Amino acid sequence: MYVIMVYDLQADRTHKALKLGRRYLTHVQNSVFEGEISEGDLETLRNEVDDLLEPDESVIIYELSSNTLLNRTVFGEDPTEGNRFL
Amino acid sequence: MYVIMVYDLQADRTHKALKLGRRYLTHVQNSVFEGEISEGDLETLRNEVDDLLEPDESVIIYELSSNTLLNRTVFGEDPTEGNRFL
Repeated sequence: MYVIMVYDLQADRTHKALKLGRRYLTHVQNSVFEGEISEGDLETLRNEVDDLLEPDESVIIYELSSNTLLNRTVFGEDPTEGNRFL
Repeated sequence: MYVIMVYDLQADRTHKALKLGRRYLTHVQNSVFEGEISEGDLETLRNEVDDLLEPDESVIIYELSSNTLLNRTVFGEDPTEGNRFL
């Protein structure tokens, strides 16, 4: 399974989403994660996101059966190159 | 065609990505757009993104042939409800 996860947390709490996301996915842009994930890990991630969020915060997880269904284009700086984010 | 577009621009320029994105897609989270788009409009959007970006900025566009391939879950606040963003 392939997922894209985007998050919008209060500025002083984004490090929590970063820490959580990095355990399962690759950080590809400021508030965006992506990657292959097992059904089991995805279920765990979903529960942890539920526990993490406070009012006015949001996370969206987009799930696809495979990334072959996805055409991904990066414009400008590709943060995953040179591991700026990793 | 269904696309998800995420952007990371310098803080004083994010309004430019917002303005561009809103012409084609729905603003669903802080730096995230989504929506159905024609091939022609997508080509135009891609060119406009190319023109917009400055060094150290990035946009990622994820394209899918249809949003039926996508399972989308919103955790916490759904910004598109009550048109907080629209």
